[in-house]
Amino acid sequence: MVKIADKRVERSKAAVLAETYRQLKQSGISGISIDEVSRASGVSKTTIYRHWTSRSALLIDACSKLGGASPPPDMGTLGADLYALAKTLAEQLQTATWATVYPSIVDAAERDPEIAALRAGLHEAFMAPFHAVIERARGRGEVRPAKPATDVIAAVVGPLFYRRWFSNEAIDDRFTEAIVAAAVKDILS
Amino acid sequence: MVKIADKRVERSKAAVLAETYRQLKQSGISGISIDEVSRASGVSKTTIYRHWTSRSALLIDACSKLGGASPPPDMGTLGADLYALAKTLAEQLQTATWATVYPSIVDAAERDPEIAALRAGLHEAFMAPFHAVIERARGRGEVRPAKPATDVIAAVVGPLFYRRWFSNEAIDDRFTEAIVAAAVKDILS
Repeated sequence: MVKIADKRVERSKAAVLAETYRQLKQSGISGISIDEVSRASGVSKTTIYRHWTSRSALLIDACSKLGGASPPPDMGTLGADLYALAKTLAEQLQTATWATVYPSIVDAAERDPEIAALRAGLHEAFMAPFHAVIERARGRGEVRPAKPATDVIAAVVGPLFYRRWFSNEAIDDRFTEAIVAAAVKDILS
Repeated sequence: MVKIADKRVERSKAAVLAETYRQLKQSGISGISIDEVSRASGVSKTTIYRHWTSRSALLIDACSKLGGASPPPDMGTLGADLYALAKTLAEQLQTATWATVYPSIVDAAERDPEIAALRAGLHEAFMAPFHAVIERARGRGEVRPAKPATDVIAAVVGPLFYRRWFSNEAIDDRFTEAIVAAAVKDILS
């Protein structure tokens, strides 16, 4: 009996998460309504709030489905590693679902501390492979000691994010190569 | 009689814009409700929609109060000009109202073509002084011909935006200087 009840709980949780994720993709975080999630998933609001203590808690759970970072490349030089990461990021920015949803998280983070914590967690996960390749290059003596890894990351990731969400320009290979080349030149000198 | 009617129209338009701007600062673009603007300003929805054809049209009008860019500096070198602009931008990102509201515009632009046009207009206005100093430096032979101005802008503005809205790191003078120095080094070589 316990098992059947457990399965029912899992099924209703999955239905709520799937519907929340659907709304997230369609309207961003601010467009998600618990009333509408309840109606579309057929799970009562009481049950939803039994599983998730707040709207933010449910959003955070749904956002964890947005996907994580890939394992860090290991091509032998910092330039090659950064270029591989930047190229993957550029592609994702122009095609992946998370690139459409991310601004809604950034916006909500301005006013909601729980969403700000979600933003920080997502950012940390996305940047982990960058930290990995920079630290490995530092071990090889490719990064001058005074250069913080976060400076290098800002110099590579910042221009890509800027083009996707602010200037709305295409991110082509020429641009990605130029950004990485400038960052590497700055690290070495 | 016409004049009195005109003044009344101006007063009610101003009340609607002021209330919309107040909500914009408080909740971002997605938090603005015409019902609530009507209630708080005391102007009927019918009248609001007589002055603005759509919710987006009103939002665009309210966003024009967010402030514009300052005139371009002219310090004699591209490095000094870019540093002056970057320093002002860094300060604004950490203190100005528009920095809190901008992510809501970027988010809404993902789904609303009218807001996307607003984002493009704001972006063009904010970047105009950067274009001005880069073109002036190009005239002095400080920028190699093959380097697009938009690359230089992405290399300076991108990392600042990234720190403010994505990594949530402090933007201090050391960072701003390092970013500008790397961009200038890349332009010259």
